[in-house]
Amino acid sequence: MKRLEHIGIAVEDLETAERIFGEVLGSPSYKREEVLGESVLTSFFQAGESKVELLIPTSEESAIARHLERRGPGLHHLAFHVDDLDEELERLRGLGYRVVSGPSKGADGKNIAFLHPGDTAKVLIELCADA
Amino acid sequence: MKRLEHIGIAVEDLETAERIFGEVLGSPSYKREEVLGESVLTSFFQAGESKVELLIPTSEESAIARHLERRGPGLHHLAFHVDDLDEELERLRGLGYRVVSGPSKGADGKNIAFLHPGDTAKVLIELCADA
Repeated sequence: MKRLEHIGIAVEDLETAERIFGEVLGSPSYKREEVLGESVLTSFFQAGESKVELLIPTSEESAIARHLERRGPGLHHLAFHVDDLDEELERLRGLGYRVVSGPSKGADGKNIAFLHPGDTAKVLIELCADA
Repeated sequence: MKRLEHIGIAVEDLETAERIFGEVLGSPSYKREEVLGESVLTSFFQAGESKVELLIPTSEESAIARHLERRGPGLHHLAFHVDDLDEELERLRGLGYRVVSGPSKGADGKNIAFLHPGDTAKVLIELCADA
């Protein structure tokens, strides 16, 4: 069984969203991290064993910039922790799931990959493993 | 600190979505439950200490039916566990957050309430406590 590692949220104003999630969760963001390969600035909150990851684009080429344009701010993706990313991608490819991005280096020192949302009930699913 | 209790996903075809999340998570849905007050049929998957909750409307009046019409299928809400729902709603109302629904009876034997997404960075946030 996989655990829910984090939930990604696209935001338009990082300071405001950090204030909101800090107030709702009762605990502030514990780190910001820029992911150069994805052109995003992230901000993380702990919520039990899972995290909330706020995402704001640092360039117009970022997938998050395109998401904000097309869908507006809000829930963006789910990330599940796996022990072995390559093995898991092979298993899922064998079942017919397409990998749309990765494996590549994500935030938080992880190796990440995304499945095609057209194969996963329109939910963008990230799989991530410790690097 | 609150923990992420579950993530709610609006789906158009429950059987297909159950197959997909069963395959991706490597473990099948462990229960279906109809929530009469919300006019939804739910299906739950465990993912570590959090759950994935699939939601399909059982009536056109359901909030999930309206969501599917307006936004299509996909990520719908985040739910955080709280120990005392009334106390937590009072705290958040004091900070200016509006409660749009509840407290009421939700799935899984919980008391639930939703915050106004206009106050929470366009993310629909549920707070839930054991009844």
